[in-house]
Amino acid sequence: MRFKTLLLGLVTGFGAFASDPIDKTLDVSSREDGVLTSSISHVRSLMRANGPKLRFNPAMPADSFPAWQAKMSEAMTRLMKHPDYQPAEPKMVKEVARPGYRLQRWETYPLPESMVAVNVLIPDGISEENPAKGAVICIPGFGQTKELLCGEEAGNYDLSRPQPDGDPAKAAMARHFADKGLIAVAVDNVSAGELSDNGHFDYLLTSRYLLELGWNYLGLCSWQNQVVLDWLKTRTDLDPSRIIISGFSLGTEPLMALGLMNPDIYAFVYNDFLCTTRDRILAMTAPDGNGNRYFPNNIEHLIPEFLTEFDFPDIVAALAPRPVICTEGGLDRDFNLIRRAYELAGAPENFEAHHYAKFAADSVRVPVTDIPAGIDRDTFFKLCNVDPPHHYFKTEHIMPWVDKLFKE
Amino acid sequence: MRFKTLLLGLVTGFGAFASDPIDKTLDVSSREDGVLTSSISHVRSLMRANGPKLRFNPAMPADSFPAWQAKMSEAMTRLMKHPDYQPAEPKMVKEVARPGYRLQRWETYPLPESMVAVNVLIPDGISEENPAKGAVICIPGFGQTKELLCGEEAGNYDLSRPQPDGDPAKAAMARHFADKGLIAVAVDNVSAGELSDNGHFDYLLTSRYLLELGWNYLGLCSWQNQVVLDWLKTRTDLDPSRIIISGFSLGTEPLMALGLMNPDIYAFVYNDFLCTTRDRILAMTAPDGNGNRYFPNNIEHLIPEFLTEFDFPDIVAALAPRPVICTEGGLDRDFNLIRRAYELAGAPENFEAHHYAKFAADSVRVPVTDIPAGIDRDTFFKLCNVDPPHHYFKTEHIMPWVDKLFKE
Repeated sequence: MRFKTLLLGLVTGFGAFASDPIDKTLDVSSREDGVLTSSISHVRSLMRANGPKLRFNPAMPADSFPAWQAKMSEAMTRLMKHPDYQPAEPKMVKEVARPGYRLQRWETYPLPESMVAVNVLIPDGISEENPAKGAVICIPGFGQTKELLCGEEAGNYDLSRPQPDGDPAKAAMARHFADKGLIAVAVDNVSAGELSDNGHFDYLLTSRYLLELGWNYLGLCSWQNQVVLDWLKTRTDLDPSRIIISGFSLGTEPLMALGLMNPDIYAFVYNDFLCTTRDRILAMTAPDGNGNRYFPNNIEHLIPEFLTEFDFPDIVAALAPRPVICTEGGLDRDFNLIRRAYELAGAPENFEAHHYAKFAADSVRVPVTDIPAGIDRDTFFKLCNVDPPHHYFKTEHIMPWVDKLFKE
Repeated sequence: MRFKTLLLGLVTGFGAFASDPIDKTLDVSSREDGVLTSSISHVRSLMRANGPKLRFNPAMPADSFPAWQAKMSEAMTRLMKHPDYQPAEPKMVKEVARPGYRLQRWETYPLPESMVAVNVLIPDGISEENPAKGAVICIPGFGQTKELLCGEEAGNYDLSRPQPDGDPAKAAMARHFADKGLIAVAVDNVSAGELSDNGHFDYLLTSRYLLELGWNYLGLCSWQNQVVLDWLKTRTDLDPSRIIISGFSLGTEPLMALGLMNPDIYAFVYNDFLCTTRDRILAMTAPDGNGNRYFPNNIEHLIPEFLTEFDFPDIVAALAPRPVICTEGGLDRDFNLIRRAYELAGAPENFEAHHYAKFAADSVRVPVTDIPAGIDRDTFFKLCNVDPPHHYFKTEHIMPWVDKLFKE
């Protein structure tokens, strides 16, 4: 009903403008008094004026750092809206042997009427008597599943199918961690894999329902992972003070949420470029051939008020002094901020950052301080030193880092 | 970056399910313990459990009605988040003569750096000495513009073009009201018409920006209209106690927001079917040929937490005893609730409802109490007595209602 006049509007609405060039940046007023005339410009102006309240200030004195961290944690807790709900105890429903480890299926019950299964990989030789030196919660990227992270066949929910032959793929992060002697837990993201709607990865629809309820996709995702984390800490076959969160792509978002909310998490694997998502929204405004501007990303990334509090680099900075490895670059500007945070926290050696190979040499990276408005996505990626075809789980950086982490 | 694994997920993700029939309702668990296994089912279950807190209770005693109305108003005020900002005074920048009325262009400044223009139609003979008996704020539907509502040529922002010949179209609601001797103000919705981005009606992008900021499309839309209402009440050429809000389609949403927040609005023209949007989300779950379920509607309709507080019929009920005309039907169930509210408020004669002509006869309407889950959009419309091809501004009902309203 509310759509039927769309066509009329499109046909009759822009005769007056058809030959004008479209403003690429949204920042320019054509009026003498400087006021902006399109709604998107008005709102963009609001966004510029409502910069992150908790932005990391590299000039803060070291003794202010803990208070700032506490505020970051409070803000994330407020945004994630984890429910006041005591889930039933997880249940193990199946266990099979795999070469080098046991693979277990556990059911968790994060919400009333709900079931969310996770896979647990336990390296051979690990037991209550000989607990693992640590554990890792492995969070997949967009379109990925816990089965992919375990090197299992797609849809092998009841663990009835044999493991495919051959070396595990790069993406099989849980297996790579198990190879290092860690207990690895692979989860599905909300709406994906076993949590999909009859095979449809319906991120958008689930996100929309959640937003209607005043919740959000990341809130539910991180809650599901929180339930796993809380349970993992009660296991007696691992050192609960050495739990790592490893996130690939979309999976870095629950990593950041859990990281701020749980000071007892030990370390973090951040496998994506370190994006300043607010910069992206404000910069990536170049119109396409039809005059339409980019939609920043899908609504599973929409957390109302998130960007008015902080952006991704601020969150990683607030994880200091806990060990973090960033594996796929970003802006040196942002890495330098994070390095400053680790200095303030007294552990500069605990932050490790790698650029994509293509941008590894200092000489090929453009030193960026402000990302200019009016650019397209390719330009944004290039400025941020991103090499999209080589976006994968970087075992070459991460496995040596794990060795170092557990050396002492 | 976060999209590149989508294809992989789609290709490998649903092998296990491909031949299973998809559950149409989302309500059925395939497990003995009754728990649901898809995220969308989990969230749907949450939505069922979080029914509107302020739902109108027809059994409430009459003396509880004002307290409930106050709570409705508080909730709407909280959701609309109108800014604590004092806009500059509106300015008239142009006036032209039209047959039977003067047409004025006014600029308003609802946000810093912003300009939102409105058109004002002043019937001949109206002045401070001979003020109009009332005024109407006319709010367009999706894809419509203030120019359409004034019977002006599209894009005629500076009023430099002559009025097209001929009788005004049904959609020219501002002219119809001016013909009745009322001062009529036609506004643009956010992102539409003169507020569009160089002719692109970018509701989605603007809504997304607003949601990022913790605001929402309806919040900004209703704020722009609130600025117009507040200014209108200061004009000396009309009776400020007789201001009507008239909303077509999408325009009914700001009508409802303003109505709850401003007890001094005199009366309301609600020109759409009276939708229970929560019922729609919970019912319209039939998968399409590809197994995808309907997206409820675009995100300009997304107001986080709205549906946990109330739905459209509750809001109209809370407008009692102020005169309301609903012109395009809906469920008799909902109209009966509203009639009960008007009885409680002591003015049953002040609520007038019309069905679409196709559904006007009682015998053709199916008496619906609960809308079943698992239906598609056509079925939903049919159950709600909606006749989409005949969705237009119903002068045939509204103009006689105006005559009656001002008869005394």
